[in-house]
Order: sequence, then structure tokens, then C-alpha cells
Amino acid sequence: MRNFGSSTMGSTILRDERFAILEECDIHYFQKVVGERAVINDKDELEAANVDWLGKFKGASQVLLRPRTTKQVASILQYCNSRGIAVVPQGGNTSLVGGSVPVFDEVIVNLGAMNKILSFDEVSGVLVCEAGCILENLDKYLAEHGFTMPLDLGAKGSCQIGGNVSTNAGGLRFLRYGSLHGNVLGLEVVLPDGTIVDMLGTLRKDNTGYDLKQLFIGGEGTLGVVTKVSLLTPAKLSSVNVAFLACQDYLSCQEVLVLAKKKLGEVLSAFEFLDRSSLDMALDHLEGMRDPLPSAKQKFYLLIETTGSNENHDKEKLDVFLEDAVRTGHVVDGVVAQDNSQSSAFWRIREGIAEALNKAGAVYKYDLSIPVKDLYQLVEEMRAKLGDSAIVIGYGHLGDGNLHLNISAPKYDEKLLLQIEPFVYEWTSQHKGSVSAEHGLGFMKPHAIHYSKTPETVQLMVKMKNLLDPNGILNPYKVLPSIHI
Amino acid sequence: MRNFGSSTMGSTILRDERFAILEECDIHYFQKVVGERAVINDKDELEAANVDWLGKFKGASQVLLRPRTTKQVASILQYCNSRGIAVVPQGGNTSLVGGSVPVFDEVIVNLGAMNKILSFDEVSGVLVCEAGCILENLDKYLAEHGFTMPLDLGAKGSCQIGGNVSTNAGGLRFLRYGSLHGNVLGLEVVLPDGTIVDMLGTLRKDNTGYDLKQLFIGGEGTLGVVTKVSLLTPAKLSSVNVAFLACQDYLSCQEVLVLAKKKLGEVLSAFEFLDRSSLDMALDHLEGMRDPLPSAKQKFYLLIETTGSNENHDKEKLDVFLEDAVRTGHVVDGVVAQDNSQSSAFWRIREGIAEALNKAGAVYKYDLSIPVKDLYQLVEEMRAKLGDSAIVIGYGHLGDGNLHLNISAPKYDEKLLLQIEPFVYEWTSQHKGSVSAEHGLGFMKPHAIHYSKTPETVQLMVKMKNLLDPNGILNPYKVLPSIHI
Repeated sequence: MRNFGSSTMGSTILRDERFAILEECDIHYFQKVVGERAVINDKDELEAANVDWLGKFKGASQVLLRPRTTKQVASILQYCNSRGIAVVPQGGNTSLVGGSVPVFDEVIVNLGAMNKILSFDEVSGVLVCEAGCILENLDKYLAEHGFTMPLDLGAKGSCQIGGNVSTNAGGLRFLRYGSLHGNVLGLEVVLPDGTIVDMLGTLRKDNTGYDLKQLFIGGEGTLGVVTKVSLLTPAKLSSVNVAFLACQDYLSCQEVLVLAKKKLGEVLSAFEFLDRSSLDMALDHLEGMRDPLPSAKQKFYLLIETTGSNENHDKEKLDVFLEDAVRTGHVVDGVVAQDNSQSSAFWRIREGIAEALNKAGAVYKYDLSIPVKDLYQLVEEMRAKLGDSAIVIGYGHLGDGNLHLNISAPKYDEKLLLQIEPFVYEWTSQHKGSVSAEHGLGFMKPHAIHYSKTPETVQLMVKMKNLLDPNGILNPYKVLPSIHI
Repeated sequence: MRNFGSSTMGSTILRDERFAILEECDIHYFQKVVGERAVINDKDELEAANVDWLGKFKGASQVLLRPRTTKQVASILQYCNSRGIAVVPQGGNTSLVGGSVPVFDEVIVNLGAMNKILSFDEVSGVLVCEAGCILENLDKYLAEHGFTMPLDLGAKGSCQIGGNVSTNAGGLRFLRYGSLHGNVLGLEVVLPDGTIVDMLGTLRKDNTGYDLKQLFIGGEGTLGVVTKVSLLTPAKLSSVNVAFLACQDYLSCQEVLVLAKKKLGEVLSAFEFLDRSSLDMALDHLEGMRDPLPSAKQKFYLLIETTGSNENHDKEKLDVFLEDAVRTGHVVDGVVAQDNSQSSAFWRIREGIAEALNKAGAVYKYDLSIPVKDLYQLVEEMRAKLGDSAIVIGYGHLGDGNLHLNISAPKYDEKLLLQIEPFVYEWTSQHKGSVSAEHGLGFMKPHAIHYSKTPETVQLMVKMKNLLDPNGILNPYKVLPSIHI
């Protein structure tokens, strides 16, 4: 029995006794399948693979496998399923919800050695690759051909496309290129019983039966292991502009969003917002930061980016948009980056807030989707509720309705936590929001699924899980609450 | 026993004896649930609802129900499931594969009376409505608010959004706005056992568990009945340009597609192609048609459309693109529409081909997805195979890899058909294409599913169907081949 102290749960989880304990003969089997070198039991390597990126969750797996082919993955799963051995699939291990590490002694199946690009079609922009390809490597490869990945994340240097797909990663290009549910054209998946399901189509349109691949996009590795991915990629456009604007109230931020959609239309590529407390947090705790609009303090700031194929056109559109935004009084101050270094400086403020929060002390983090019109009300209610006991800040992807609510305090405090939770989840639920916008549920949040999903929906998920993984061997203790004892 | 002579199948299907025969008491129950007026047994109305849009398939249903609420739909399905009564859900009944009509005596549940718009958020562009809303009505409603539907179809005046979602409709705006798998944000669905599953989120990002709504997008009404839809809609842009261009060979068409993606980038909204035989077909059989490029006959023609927020910018982009396309020799002739009437004339040629084919005689129609580079090879091989016995024409959405292959002959001929099929399906399968790009499988093509899906994938579909509809009452005899006896 081990206590996995998610601050929001405090629950105690028992190892599922259905699962077999690994024996020497199992190791021998694995060595036969993937070769001796691909069966890792080195302590340091195992230690790294057992701990999540935040250092919050720690498993006790005794073995990590590095298959190089889909057949090897299939052999591993078929064997583990028949033996009742639990398995955790692992990509770049950058999950923020403990989704990619073992909880107890699950066998780790790391996809990193399956990292080949299989094909790229310059006419259609369709890329086919193995699941272990690192996101940044794919983007570099595409750039040489004049294309770009439809998603971009902070973790791009280590996260893998199979993990991105399995967690339905959102990220920075979401506003422009949309969700992986639209961009993934095909998948190859190994089911828990070892069946290889080849759905690796490269077609934009295919209405021959149910679109089953969608189940594995965001399945968090609990329904099958993604081994190959086919993806639609957009052409890389050359012109990028960034503006940093100030608004007096949240209503104005919304009006500017509406205006941006109309005036910037097809070139709008990011619409980020931060409140004054967020900006102060970055200015106070990060080195070399400057207030881009120092003349007067405002309540809200927007970072707006355009990406297009023609620099003059984009600038002209931005000018027209800014004129309108200022004339109508929605924007009260603003500056457009004159070069790349100024663009980067604006982005560093937005992207540096998380780091600044870590430096400022203890922080309670929530990644929420809330209808845009209600989104900031939660920050204000939380602020009123907590008074002087903590600093409440709100920022995020306004264009996507994605709020990063952060509460900064000198130290972690159970009383403060009880003021925050379950209030945050209940409020989000009442406003038909999502308690996990893009990070998934993983090991950290299965208990919170009911705040965003109805009982009927959760029950259907459980049925899906039981259908595809009747022995429950794949990524156990994750996503679904019923699996928690 | 009745013979449903799909020309491609020639198979004989028996009524599934598991299903109960409708009795007087069933009618009384339905009257209690939806009211007497919403239980239709008028002969003319039933006749219309029993026959598909092509007049190819004819059912023998004795009753049509018009529920007005989700609860009524749930009561109907729960009752039918417990009684073993088969049900066919029906929207605008515009299916081209016999998906929306009864095969035998299934009860027709028509969603047309559930046609309310429930909400529209001008900040996020999220529309929530009932399943029976007609596509064109939704587009008109949105236009008043400066937005547009992300899909557009020839059948927009009668097709319903619930049907569009259930068939994963593609259409004319697909190249620009992508698939419904990306644009549908939420669904309310009634399962065959009457369970109402509320997944009607309005959020762009929600990673709390499996994205189950995806199963019902393209489920063709065999897994559940869609009752409400939440949809992301794009801003309506004001500037539209249309060019009609000629190329000497298919390789040039591909080069122009690559160039258009680069130079037109974010404003490209349609990339259609037609071969000379297609153009001749339209010119010969439709009234008031003129060759837009009469100076010389070429082998291939492209219709390229841009849609953007700034007319001057779009025209300039188009000019630059056209200069490049001509300079490199890929485009040998071309004209840009100078006004709306000229744009419409170009579009009428492209959209009129189907009508022209019908006037020309008998026609064998195939809606295929094929990787762009191989797409036209099928037309050439077919032409070589058939020689003088038929006219083979190829046109379609080149930007999406969607070929409409049509074979025109003086009259229907079994021998000719045997030369075409299964060759077309086998060829498409060998090139990893789809035998139904956007029309679905319906009643017409379940036998062809294996050409585009592996046995493992089809087996998984069957498991899904059995999980959600163990009694098989919902839209029987459709989509899955195993249900055919």
C-alpha cells in the first residue's frame, strides 16, 4: 500500500491484486522478443523512467522495454495480457498529470526507439511516422520541405508524437490549426491483447465505417498503444507579427477577440491574455523583464500574433485592426514588435509566468476550459474568497477559452487548499467548463472527471475500457475513477 | 424476401427475424409519447419517407414518428429496444447510399421537428442547436451574426445538421475548415437503449476522458441518434475570388496545388479539378454553358477559389500566384472571374458535371479518396480498359484527394459493370484509398468496407456496434457487412 499524495485527492490506492508479479521467466521472454539490450533494468535508467516530469509521482517498475517494431509491441502486450502483467506505455514522459509513469510495478514500454519518419508527401502535406518521433525533430524535418507541424508545445524537445496523440495535446498553434482530432489522418495501434489495428490511412476523407482511431486520440494509453501516426501538416508561412495590447476591463478583451477574428481573420494565429497580477508576477520574479507598456498600469493585457504568407498584407491588416480597436476604446495602449527580438520578449513574458510563479513560492495550478464570457469571473470570485491570504492570477489562451488559474502563496497550506477545492472544480462544472483543458486526467485527476462529464458518459467510457482491455492491464489506475479502489 | 438491387451488390437480403412486427399497441404507445399528430401513417408522407433521394431504395415502413424533444426520442428508443422493434433515424433524407430509409418495416424516427437554435456565442463562434436544423437555415442565421457554417453541401436546403454529423459530411468548405471531427465540439446522443448521453460541451479544449462523441460523427445512425449539436463556426469573410486555369498534364495540376498552398496559403478555399472529358460533358449537355478558355483545348482544368478578409490583399496574392504558375509553365491558360456572375459561371461548370452526366445517358458513379499523386492514374487505366465502350471522366476536390470517377454509357449493361467492378475497388484498395470518401457506406456499400478497412478494424467496429446496440435495432442492415445475411 502506497500513498500517492495528489494534493487534491489525498486518497490511498492499493495495487490491483489481479496483476501478476514479474518473474525471471518474464524477463527472459522479453529478452527473446526485443533483444537483451532493449530490456532495461539499470537502476539509473529505471529511476528516471519511474518518476514524472514534475517529480510528483514515483513508480517502482523493475523493467523498461524498448521495442523497435510494432510486432515487438504486439508480442509484449499479448504476453502481458495472457500473464496478467500490467503495462505503462511511455513516450517522452512529459505528462503533467502523472499519466506516463508506473504507479506500482507496471512494465514500462517506451516507444522512443521507434523514431523513424516513414513518408512525407509534399503535394498533400501528409506525414507518416513512428510514434517515438520527437515533436521538434518532426517540425525541423518538415521545415526543410516548407511545412510545419500543426501543434507546438513547450515540451517539444522531448515529447513524442505518439504521446501527443495519446494525450490529444493542444498547445500554441491550436487556435490556428485546431485539434488533433481533425489533423490526425490515421493511426496504427496495438490493442491490449496484442492485436495490431492498422488504421494508418493518409486520406483527408474516408467515410468507410466508424472513425475508431478517434478513441485513441486522448485515450491516454489506456485503450491501446499508438505505434504509428499519419498527420496532415500545413504549409509553413513566412510572415509573423506580434502585438502587446492593454485593455481596461475583461469585456474589452472579449470585444477585441471578436474584432480580431473579423479583421485579422485568416492570419490570426494566437490570442493570449494575462491580467495585471500575471504581468507583475513576471516582472517581479524574472530577470531582464521589462513592462512593454510602462506609461500606465492596466488591468488586462493581450498578446496577439498573426502568421501569413505576405508580410505587407499582414502588417496592413494588423494596422487596420489596431486602429479599430483603439478608436472603439477597447484597447487603451499597445505596441507592435518591430523585430524578432521584441516579439520574443513579448512571448517571454507570457511564457515566463509559470516560471515566475515557481520562484514566488508555493503555487496551486489549474488548467481549465470555461466559456469565454464567464472565464475571468472565476479569477475574481477566487480573489474575493481568498482575500489577502494569497495572490490569484489568471492568464491563458483566451482564443481557445483556456484559463490558467494560479494561486500563489508563501507556502503550501491545507486550509488554503480547502478554500480553493472543490470550489474551483464546482464553479467550473456549474459553468459547463472542463477541469482539464489539455493536460488530460492521467493519475492525478480521475476523481475529478465527474465535474466535467455526466455519469452516463463516464459509464460509457468504462464500457469502452472493458471492451478493449478486459483484463485492465494497460496503463492501470489512470483516467477512469472506477479503477481507483 | 426482397431484392434490393444495388447494381454493385446484386445481393439478396432477408428481414432479420429477431425484429418484432409492429402491433396496434405499439402505435398507441407512440401516440402517448409524441402525441397523435406526431405519429404519421398517411400514405403519401410515408411513401416519401420510405424512398431515398436517388429513388434507388424503397422501404416498407408503416409509421413515421416526429419527436419534438430528446426525452421523446429516448422513450421511443427505450420502448423499441425492449420490444425488439427496428428503427431508422432520418434527417433530411438526402443520403446517396441509402442510409436514411428503412430497408423493411423499420419505424422511421424523423428529427425534423427538433429544429431549434439553442444558443450562439458571438465571442467564441460556438453554435448549439437541435439535430433537425436545416444546414442552410443555420448558415443564414450565422450570416446575420458575421459567421458561417464550416460545411456547405449541394443538399444544404434540405439536409439536417444531425444527419451531417451522423454521416461526417465533407462538402465544399472542407479544404479550408476541415472535418467535422475537428469542428463538432459537443453532441447529445440517445443510445439504442434510450440512455441520453449529454456530451454537449461548448469548449474547444476538453481532455477529461475519452472523446466518445467522435464515434457518433460518421456512425451513420447505427450507434445512437444525435439529438443536439455544438459546433465551432468561423467568421464569415468578405472577399472571394475565383480563377479557372488550364494545365497540359496531371503532374502540372499537382505542382499548381503545391504552389497554391505556398502562395495563396491562408486564403485558399477551394482547389477543384476536371479533365477535358468532364468539361466537354458539361458543355455538350447543359444549356448556356461556355468554355471559359476557348482558344485551345487542354487536358486538365482547375477551379481555384480564395476567401479572405481583404479584397486587395487576396487579389494581389492571386496575381503573384498566377504569375508564378504561368512562368513555370504549369499553367498554360487561365482567366480570373471579374464579377460574381462570372464566378458563378465557373462554379456552374464544376457543379453541373453530375447533371450533365445524367442527361448523357447511363452513369456509373464512384466517390473515391486516393493519394493525390496516384489519383488520375485510375481514370487513365479505366479509360484504357474500357476503350470505346464508354466515356470515362474524372473530376473532384483535388485539394482533398477526392476523385469523382464517372463512367458514361448509352445504357446500363451488366458486362460493362463487370469490367468496372471490382476493378475500381481493388485498384483503390491497392493504392490505400477509400471506396467512400464522403458519402458513407449506408445500405449500398457495406460489402465494400474491406477494400478500405482491415479485418481487425472491421471486427472492432462490430464489437462497438454490439456494445452500444446489442439488439441491433438501430438502422439495421447498414454500414457493417456482418449484418448482411
